[in-house]
Amino acid sequence: MENQFQVGTTTTISGMIHNVRVTKWGGFIILRKARGLVQTVVGEQSHFYDEQGAEIAMADLCREMAVTITGTVNEAKIKDPAALNNTIEIAVDKVEVLSRPSSTEVIDMNALKFGDEEALLRYKFDNRQVTLRNPRDMGILKVQSTIAKAFADYLTEQGFTQIFTPKIVSEGAEGGANVFTMDYFGKQVYLAQSPQFYKQIGVGVYERVFEIAAAYRAEKHATSRHLNEYISLDVEMGFIKGQEDVMKLEADLLRSIIARVNTACAHELNLLNATMPVLPENVPAWKLSEVHEILFNEHLCEADHRGEDDLAPEEERAICKYALEKYGSDFVFVTHFPSEHRAFYAMDDPKDPTLTLSFDLLMRGLEITSGGQRMHSEDDYRRKMIARGMNPDNFRFYLDTFRNGMPPHGGFAIGLERITACFLGLTNVKEASMFPRDINRVAP
Amino acid sequence: MENQFQVGTTTTISGMIHNVRVTKWGGFIILRKARGLVQTVVGEQSHFYDEQGAEIAMADLCREMAVTITGTVNEAKIKDPAALNNTIEIAVDKVEVLSRPSSTEVIDMNALKFGDEEALLRYKFDNRQVTLRNPRDMGILKVQSTIAKAFADYLTEQGFTQIFTPKIVSEGAEGGANVFTMDYFGKQVYLAQSPQFYKQIGVGVYERVFEIAAAYRAEKHATSRHLNEYISLDVEMGFIKGQEDVMKLEADLLRSIIARVNTACAHELNLLNATMPVLPENVPAWKLSEVHEILFNEHLCEADHRGEDDLAPEEERAICKYALEKYGSDFVFVTHFPSEHRAFYAMDDPKDPTLTLSFDLLMRGLEITSGGQRMHSEDDYRRKMIARGMNPDNFRFYLDTFRNGMPPHGGFAIGLERITACFLGLTNVKEASMFPRDINRVAP
Repeated sequence: MENQFQVGTTTTISGMIHNVRVTKWGGFIILRKARGLVQTVVGEQSHFYDEQGAEIAMADLCREMAVTITGTVNEAKIKDPAALNNTIEIAVDKVEVLSRPSSTEVIDMNALKFGDEEALLRYKFDNRQVTLRNPRDMGILKVQSTIAKAFADYLTEQGFTQIFTPKIVSEGAEGGANVFTMDYFGKQVYLAQSPQFYKQIGVGVYERVFEIAAAYRAEKHATSRHLNEYISLDVEMGFIKGQEDVMKLEADLLRSIIARVNTACAHELNLLNATMPVLPENVPAWKLSEVHEILFNEHLCEADHRGEDDLAPEEERAICKYALEKYGSDFVFVTHFPSEHRAFYAMDDPKDPTLTLSFDLLMRGLEITSGGQRMHSEDDYRRKMIARGMNPDNFRFYLDTFRNGMPPHGGFAIGLERITACFLGLTNVKEASMFPRDINRVAP
Repeated sequence: MENQFQVGTTTTISGMIHNVRVTKWGGFIILRKARGLVQTVVGEQSHFYDEQGAEIAMADLCREMAVTITGTVNEAKIKDPAALNNTIEIAVDKVEVLSRPSSTEVIDMNALKFGDEEALLRYKFDNRQVTLRNPRDMGILKVQSTIAKAFADYLTEQGFTQIFTPKIVSEGAEGGANVFTMDYFGKQVYLAQSPQFYKQIGVGVYERVFEIAAAYRAEKHATSRHLNEYISLDVEMGFIKGQEDVMKLEADLLRSIIARVNTACAHELNLLNATMPVLPENVPAWKLSEVHEILFNEHLCEADHRGEDDLAPEEERAICKYALEKYGSDFVFVTHFPSEHRAFYAMDDPKDPTLTLSFDLLMRGLEITSGGQRMHSEDDYRRKMIARGMNPDNFRFYLDTFRNGMPPHGGFAIGLERITACFLGLTNVKEASMFPRDINRVAP
């Protein structure tokens, strides 16, 4: 499309009319394309035609008409920062209407002014079929799309196989109450909370697998941090020496994704006023107990969190600040969380079985992914299930996988909407979902 | 990995023991890697070590141990057609066991001999967590994975944006009874039969969109052609001049996918004894009425199908045979299906409103995709909904999309499992699903 914008050439472009402004001498038609806005200038030379080819007036044009515009590319007189290419404008020769809205009261996102941010968000989500057309939301989901593609590209290059696993399942992987149930021909089944069991099975087949698919959590609240249906970017790799191999893969993968977003979405980052995080060659990695110690010794937290079995929110923020100042990293790995707080499939640390070989990755003060090494021996699974009051008989096919042999393996999962929101500095994760689902929202 | 197989070099590879064969002079260890089998030869120079590094005997090895093998790459004495690279074998210096199955009775897929194909399939699906490890099934799903990646790559190059749309929906897109319902915090909702509404909405935002995601059909039968959960490869594009633009895109896309599978999956195609179809520059395209005429005039069907409102199965086979013999094409487009047999969103042919601007694509005697131009005027939607006894009030957000303006657009959907099965000549589509779901099967 860049070639269409060479100064001095005649060009023909199609798009939606984002806005029309009439002036004494003619006016402007702001055309919306897939990646942003294009400014076109109407003058005496301009003609307008309806769907049947009959000549019409500029005043007959309206927002959200689909049109084809032919004109000459000139250097821009006014440089609109929201424009896709703000160095040019197009002097309109001809506008041909392809189709039109049936209402003259189309939603004008640019005119939306709410006193209250919550009311604006609610309005946007209630009318998302149309409000998605505003450049800001288009930019967010374009970045989301780019992250997903970069994820698949990098892992494919590294010899991973993309798998597609069922979301209608007979056993929940993550436990707890936040699972959706449904009737499946008279049987009670679940919507998968994660592809955990299946991606581990995939390692026994393809050594290294990834999946990009929906995951479901029946969260009973509607906060800015929760989605009931989200896209999980899942990775699982076999033949690892330890969780360090998994952490290295995740860092390399994220570095590749960040580089791609920086180059492919420069326009969107600019529009959203976002700066992508820095991920250095060596990402700081500390044990949970070490994080408590560092923050206490350096007086970086209000409270003394030593001995606690999880990270406090103020610790997440403080350790990220510390890592950025001291190591130039927007990311921090925290490892060795207590076994009782991690999923049953996490491998316990042979040096201290109360801890696990598992990690969280923090970015700019927030946890963005969890991962770690998994157990690979059937006996270990049975022992841990029984210790937790789980019935191994409910996990027949999963345990059968380990009975039939599995290599040492581990993996992680990244919530696509959450990482998109973190990269772009959005305060509400729902803004990074095309059609968010929460306890109150199942439409549009 | 190819570099690991250079004759005369020492190499170290990890994988699962697929089989062990002991001979008088030593034996063979067949190692299974992600892409297939590697033959290694045990001799006097070979040593074996357990997980703790203690030396063990070859007799202590068993199937489905995860091992690392170090040895010398030699030219193969026996050329196994199932091997990943059958020109080489590895003379084993050292085998290190990384992990082992907890049972000595691991499933040996190669030893499975059933008199009856159905019983074999049932056994394979019942134990899919392990039977997926046989090279044939690995090959099928590797081709599936490659098709999905090639689909995303080609469309991204063509300026399409990948979207992620909800599967928990408040309105069904395709109608009919085969929809799964579930309770969502006290409200009845559905699992999406297709992303039809959402991908059309996506066209109003990004002009061209695609999605790779699960679709759900509550089919009440368990046949070789049905899946209740499948992966739908969905495409929708705006600013089309007619359905021909959509057909051209689909042909170009499939040509790109076929080329990728041919180069990236040569090993798997060989293993599965499959030949990819031929898709010439010009794919034959006939109206439904023309297909009836051709087949009647050329005496290619038993019955006279002229005047019928759909293609008979014998016609699907006959027109594909005809297209291959006369035009060298494994594909045929059939267009202009009667309006009453197509989804309500199909655009009627202005020249004959009893017909639609929609198409099926046939390959080797089977319909593999449906597509066409969609209506873009709200009034047309309302008129057609009312004529079909549908209540427009149930489709508020969908209709609102058209009220707010939409460009002329169209698209198509490809069932990933179905096209994989067609490419590979599988008789049961479930073989192209990692964990198939039908009325009787919701596990593993």
